[in-house]
Amino acid sequence: MTASKQQPRLVTAQQFYTFAEPPDQMLLESGARLGPVTIAYETYGQMSADRDNVILITHAFSGDSHVAGYLADDKEDAKPGWWDSLVGPGKGIDTDSYFVICSNILGSCMGSTGPASINPATDKPYGLDFPMVTIGDMVAAQKALMDHLQINSLLAVIGGSVGGMQVLEWCIRYPDMVRSAVPLATTMRHSALAIAFNEVARQSIMADPNWNKGDYYGKEGPDLGLAIARMIGHVTYLSDEAMRRKFGRRLQDKRDFSFGFDADFQVESYLRYQGSKFVRRFDANALLYITKAADYFDLVDNLTTRESIRDLSGATIKFLVISYTSDWLYPTYQARELVQALKRSSQDVSFCEINADCGHDAFLLPDERLTNLISGFLKGVFNG
Amino acid sequence: MTASKQQPRLVTAQQFYTFAEPPDQMLLESGARLGPVTIAYETYGQMSADRDNVILITHAFSGDSHVAGYLADDKEDAKPGWWDSLVGPGKGIDTDSYFVICSNILGSCMGSTGPASINPATDKPYGLDFPMVTIGDMVAAQKALMDHLQINSLLAVIGGSVGGMQVLEWCIRYPDMVRSAVPLATTMRHSALAIAFNEVARQSIMADPNWNKGDYYGKEGPDLGLAIARMIGHVTYLSDEAMRRKFGRRLQDKRDFSFGFDADFQVESYLRYQGSKFVRRFDANALLYITKAADYFDLVDNLTTRESIRDLSGATIKFLVISYTSDWLYPTYQARELVQALKRSSQDVSFCEINADCGHDAFLLPDERLTNLISGFLKGVFNG
Repeated sequence: MTASKQQPRLVTAQQFYTFAEPPDQMLLESGARLGPVTIAYETYGQMSADRDNVILITHAFSGDSHVAGYLADDKEDAKPGWWDSLVGPGKGIDTDSYFVICSNILGSCMGSTGPASINPATDKPYGLDFPMVTIGDMVAAQKALMDHLQINSLLAVIGGSVGGMQVLEWCIRYPDMVRSAVPLATTMRHSALAIAFNEVARQSIMADPNWNKGDYYGKEGPDLGLAIARMIGHVTYLSDEAMRRKFGRRLQDKRDFSFGFDADFQVESYLRYQGSKFVRRFDANALLYITKAADYFDLVDNLTTRESIRDLSGATIKFLVISYTSDWLYPTYQARELVQALKRSSQDVSFCEINADCGHDAFLLPDERLTNLISGFLKGVFNG
Repeated sequence: MTASKQQPRLVTAQQFYTFAEPPDQMLLESGARLGPVTIAYETYGQMSADRDNVILITHAFSGDSHVAGYLADDKEDAKPGWWDSLVGPGKGIDTDSYFVICSNILGSCMGSTGPASINPATDKPYGLDFPMVTIGDMVAAQKALMDHLQINSLLAVIGGSVGGMQVLEWCIRYPDMVRSAVPLATTMRHSALAIAFNEVARQSIMADPNWNKGDYYGKEGPDLGLAIARMIGHVTYLSDEAMRRKFGRRLQDKRDFSFGFDADFQVESYLRYQGSKFVRRFDANALLYITKAADYFDLVDNLTTRESIRDLSGATIKFLVISYTSDWLYPTYQARELVQALKRSSQDVSFCEINADCGHDAFLLPDERLTNLISGFLKGVFNG
């Protein structure tokens, strides 16, 4: 797509909403209480007078509220938000038509309350005193933000991966508020394989002596452990095919093997780079909490809440479920299981498997097919 | 198969052969020299008068020479060798008919010379002063052992995974010695995905402060890093399907989530157990060296040796290539690429993809199909 004329730079600002001030703390699924809770969020576009054009975008495990455009103080060469290919004026999720909100999840480190936040009881960062939060708790915090913004109907909730879990949780918890839902590259219950990768990532952080049982703020943190956790993540986000195409066995600027433990292959350098880059922007404890929330996620047989896709029977939500052929973290067979469960609950479900060789990460990459799918779906819901 | 009468316990002993005593050190592919070199090995059955019934079994990355049966001082409840389901009297690789040899690879820590061995130049363990070894070097050391045993013809070379790489390397280096070859669950060039997993495993060891640049012998070793490396390995050895069947989302003796960072799920406990068990038997530096040898393995376009499957054109080796449907570390498409390359080199190739949901590990599990395949193939070669 080439725009006929240059769009002005989409500029946004991170905002904050704080609630659950003691003694009215938030009751979490675990039974623990948390408060105050701050949620960082950004908005794009204008809310209609009828407040009927609101789209909530939910982000994946290491994401943030900066889904599109630029912040006012961004440099000229700054990268735009993480889904800028899809969200903005004239784009698939068109901010000329819709009012888009994206909020940073509870438990994260990108502006919302998480383990790196100050615990008012001690005036020190929570660390492991932060209570375990679930996908349901993240969604409950988003609901509090919607109440604050006086939004009581969502045209759509859209998100991939851990964001897709939040989409499904929204439908279960607040079916009357959700007109349509687009879960991408996700699952209705975390598989043993996905739990296994998360567990290895957590162990690699907790094995780092600098982790210090989560009490490392203001000191040297578990950077090596966190980098390895990210490397594990990156392998799971790509596919065999994508790695073959992207790296193959190409060497890193050498004509022969080093016969040592330097990075010989480009794929090794790539992973080391991704690991060290992540350390500069993400908190190790936040990774522990958010991966655990994903592992607990189960809308088939939830042990704590007893929530299930079956609970949707009374709802009338339009679903667009999207999976990717080469996603082996949340493979298409899991999307099909979700589609079947939704249909058994009498929901209106469209399903699309997109042919892509880039693995789980595919949903984050610019893709005209995704743009057209989502834009067409949203128009149908908005006008329908 | 039920044996008509109880077989006597197959008892074997680990033996050692030392060669390349200075100044006649072994020249490695890297150009470095190593010596003396000790190779640990075990034999099973009797060599025929014509010395025409010798089978060499090559082991996978963390394996050893103890392929079958029991050692003389094993306790009554000891586990037998790692391929006891396939190797022994009356079994698929029948030690009543064949003389079977299995040797521990160069660079390992199971009796052969490796980074934990004493460096005669310093009287201390080599650590990172151990030179990098390749799959070709491992095979050259096996060849020295065959010379020592006065074996100049191998009825078959059989091995899976890194063992399968050795099988192929044998065919390239010593085509006149090899009558038949059975590479299982392997590849002719290590893929970017496989390199990526190995690199993360290596990084997890090298991030452990106890690793101390490989100089940890006699001190506390990098146990946590090694355990994580093994956990990563175990995830790649299983398949999504096997993990679903074996663990699903079953909890570890609890009725609800812990809402903490203990192992909630059985798959987490399994990985932690596998990690800590491995630490008791394997050397972290050996893992670094052997994974690097696997990463360097390339019989399509080898940078150092210029070896290639194409070099086989003059040879007359019978091949039986075996892959497993759910092996995503060395998937069937890679076995097919190998088969095609062998056929282009005019080799006699049979190929079998075994339907199994247990992932890469499948080749190590008792399987009557594998037993029958290999036993029939060997009879054909022996009598043909």
